[in-house]
Amino acid sequence: MKYKIVTLVCVLMIGFMAYMIPNISAREEERLAFQATPVVEESKKSKSDEWERYFPRQYGSWKKTEESHEIEDMLERFPQLAILWAGYGFSKDYNAPRGHAYALQDNKNTLRTGAPVDDKSGPMPTACWSCKSPDVPRMIEEDGELEYFTGKWAKYGNEIVNSIGCADCHDNETMELEIRRPFLDRGLEAAGLPKFKDSTHQQKRSLVCAQCHVEYYFKPTPWKNEKGEDKLAKVVTFPWDNGLTAEDMEEYYDEKKFKDWTHKLSGTPMLKAQHPGWEIFQTGIHGQKGVSCADCHMPYTQEGTVKYSDHQLQSPLRTMDRSCMPCHREGEDKLRGIVNQKLTRKNFLMQLTMDNLAKAHLETAKAVEIGATAEELKQVREHIRHGQWRWDYSIASHGSFFHAPEETLRLLGSANDEAQKARILLVRVLAKHGLPDFQAPDFSNKENAQSLAGVPLKKLIEAKMKFKATLEKEWMAEAAKKGKLNMSSQEGIDQESSYFDNRKKK
Amino acid sequence: MKYKIVTLVCVLMIGFMAYMIPNISAREEERLAFQATPVVEESKKSKSDEWERYFPRQYGSWKKTEESHEIEDMLERFPQLAILWAGYGFSKDYNAPRGHAYALQDNKNTLRTGAPVDDKSGPMPTACWSCKSPDVPRMIEEDGELEYFTGKWAKYGNEIVNSIGCADCHDNETMELEIRRPFLDRGLEAAGLPKFKDSTHQQKRSLVCAQCHVEYYFKPTPWKNEKGEDKLAKVVTFPWDNGLTAEDMEEYYDEKKFKDWTHKLSGTPMLKAQHPGWEIFQTGIHGQKGVSCADCHMPYTQEGTVKYSDHQLQSPLRTMDRSCMPCHREGEDKLRGIVNQKLTRKNFLMQLTMDNLAKAHLETAKAVEIGATAEELKQVREHIRHGQWRWDYSIASHGSFFHAPEETLRLLGSANDEAQKARILLVRVLAKHGLPDFQAPDFSNKENAQSLAGVPLKKLIEAKMKFKATLEKEWMAEAAKKGKLNMSSQEGIDQESSYFDNRKKK
Repeated sequence: MKYKIVTLVCVLMIGFMAYMIPNISAREEERLAFQATPVVEESKKSKSDEWERYFPRQYGSWKKTEESHEIEDMLERFPQLAILWAGYGFSKDYNAPRGHAYALQDNKNTLRTGAPVDDKSGPMPTACWSCKSPDVPRMIEEDGELEYFTGKWAKYGNEIVNSIGCADCHDNETMELEIRRPFLDRGLEAAGLPKFKDSTHQQKRSLVCAQCHVEYYFKPTPWKNEKGEDKLAKVVTFPWDNGLTAEDMEEYYDEKKFKDWTHKLSGTPMLKAQHPGWEIFQTGIHGQKGVSCADCHMPYTQEGTVKYSDHQLQSPLRTMDRSCMPCHREGEDKLRGIVNQKLTRKNFLMQLTMDNLAKAHLETAKAVEIGATAEELKQVREHIRHGQWRWDYSIASHGSFFHAPEETLRLLGSANDEAQKARILLVRVLAKHGLPDFQAPDFSNKENAQSLAGVPLKKLIEAKMKFKATLEKEWMAEAAKKGKLNMSSQEGIDQESSYFDNRKKK
Repeated sequence: MKYKIVTLVCVLMIGFMAYMIPNISAREEERLAFQATPVVEESKKSKSDEWERYFPRQYGSWKKTEESHEIEDMLERFPQLAILWAGYGFSKDYNAPRGHAYALQDNKNTLRTGAPVDDKSGPMPTACWSCKSPDVPRMIEEDGELEYFTGKWAKYGNEIVNSIGCADCHDNETMELEIRRPFLDRGLEAAGLPKFKDSTHQQKRSLVCAQCHVEYYFKPTPWKNEKGEDKLAKVVTFPWDNGLTAEDMEEYYDEKKFKDWTHKLSGTPMLKAQHPGWEIFQTGIHGQKGVSCADCHMPYTQEGTVKYSDHQLQSPLRTMDRSCMPCHREGEDKLRGIVNQKLTRKNFLMQLTMDNLAKAHLETAKAVEIGATAEELKQVREHIRHGQWRWDYSIASHGSFFHAPEETLRLLGSANDEAQKARILLVRVLAKHGLPDFQAPDFSNKENAQSLAGVPLKKLIEAKMKFKATLEKEWMAEAAKKGKLNMSSQEGIDQESSYFDNRKKK
């Protein structure tokens, strides 16, 4: 009897254990899954809010880039700019940059991108989306790079709908840093530098930023599509073949006789610097000490026992405790004072340079008006082209006064010298045509400056408002319908722009 | 018998001990003397070789400043300088500075101090000795400051005979840092800064240098001597009342309508910056971190178990292991590379600025020649005055490219802008007088430049050689006879100067 009971218990236990085995395996699988890097679905990766569940802190901090909602109208602050960029989009509208969350919306809001009425109209090529969204690499992958770079900006309005986010810098399976814009690797190769995959982790912490925060231009590139039709792509290209300094790139553009536009007032074949932040940063002391962009702009942050990179990219002056203090021993106030001195010095030379460049354009316009020939103005225009390029290169990346204060000041000094060289020659030309005492008209406020630059502001705003009320809304609805956009992610992205501000003020 | 012997031994021992007592006291005195700070006799303290026995290491390193014996003719290297300083001593002769041991000899060698034939002749006032010798404070103490600053340079030729040395910065009794030139304290007071005695030890480690390595001018100061006679002293004065920046001092001089000289070519009332090293250093990062001059230029040095300050003042690039590496973690080569970049940037803007200033002078001269009026040239000359002042301020202290790279570049950018502003106005003036296309003559070598500046070089050299063969020799002999100079200290002080070099070459 005893044996029977013992045997029964044993059988029951074995049975129970057998029943439990799959459960134990399931727990082990669960444990492994928990430890593994989560995978964001390929089809959803452009939508940063899909990453939130796995990376709530990184996502949350990225989302906070919405806090930089204020608009600073740079044309109000520096009216000279409207003169410097006459005939080019930037003379219409140019605001200080806001956070990554606004990158795409601000691109659609700016008067520079105009007011298309369908996918084939508007002033800009597709290339203008290139730095605004993780939908860009998606379209490059889907359509092929040359097709992506062909056609009008409006062509992708219903596809490119998520602002710069997770998938711009991270692999959705491994979460490793990655670049998805092929033009960076081509630039690195042209410069004789290691490609992204051959770079160190610390270099990658800057290179992901260098996908966009660099100098580039839209290189006209003829190609044939599958049907054998002739197409012209405008391909984002980094002019790094001769090196990374302002003079290296100037030489590159000069050799190619490239121009971004012909200046409306002075008739000069102009160059527009984009934002060569990565290049100029390397000439400064932080760059030379191997500091990466992320070290200061994405400082490590502790929350309880968790440490993560802050994805609220912003001025490190707002995160000095985490950005500066790990290395520096001075007090924050003292460091801030030193940084402000750098800014003051830069502004001093920048102001001089912009004024003189603006005068050079206006004086050239007058010379043309009273009969000066292209031959008489050849050298003048060369000085203007080089002066404005050096000025723009030195300050267009905004933080250069801090990233590379000495190189910035050197370039501003050189830019101003070019402007003044042009102006010395201009007095001679003007004198020969009977106007030795010509004084450039007043450009000390935005209204005057834009009027001199021939910007039909009211018309541009009206057209843009119509675009925003119609085509832009259609784009978003279509994208949402196709599953390319979670409409909820648009909450909080305010629609402010400088011309709305102006309306409010008036 | 036994007792007698014992008593005798005792008496002898007591006698011996009594004999030894003074000796023991003497040993104690000797011990105290050895521990005490040695005192250099008051009457001998200007002679640095008198300090050698007590401070052989400090003296030995000071003596090594003789190693910097090479002459670099700056007018050969930058011929523009002869134009910039036309009508002023520096257009005659200007070499890169050598070590402290040469300060006095180079002052006597330079063509700037001319060729006096007695104590009342020659171009320069007594003030020109002021930074060259510890005999200067001696004469100020002996004669009174106003008497010291009255009369010709040659007046003190047989008194001021020892080059910058120990007694310029050290008290001969306590060996503490001290200043013996009253003009520094007056300058500090004018600037609202603590006087020397109220400064910290670390500040004093720079302030002793600031007795000389600063901006100053010779302020005309009328006074009456004991006999009631009217005298005019030219008193070394620091223009610090408005602050320590280039613009602050420019304002100071402008308010006083002060000029160092009238430019021989352009007729501009000019300012000559001296060497505002202490002032500009404070705007740089080392200054702002509280580094003193001595920290880098007089690094602590270990010899066996002894640690002392190296008194061979020189470029810290020659002593990087002791000057830089105590704070910096980079390799020497990397640091040196960074320093060289700073120098290259400075040279780039400096070259532009000097060229344009030189052209502005020559163009003004031409305008005057063809009939331009003072009224027509008023603004031109203001721009030239300010431009040249800012250029000179920014670079005259030699190390500014490193001490304060950003302030240096900012000032060079501003200086060049002033030069170019003058030149723009000049084209107008020249055009009105019928010469719109005037090009300044060639000043690309020293001979051309000095010829344009009207420097009678051959005559100046001949007179100087005569002075050196006669009066200078007499001065030294008289000083030695009066005990003011140990002739042996003159060994090793080579007599090289740029015009000897030229002779050798030709």
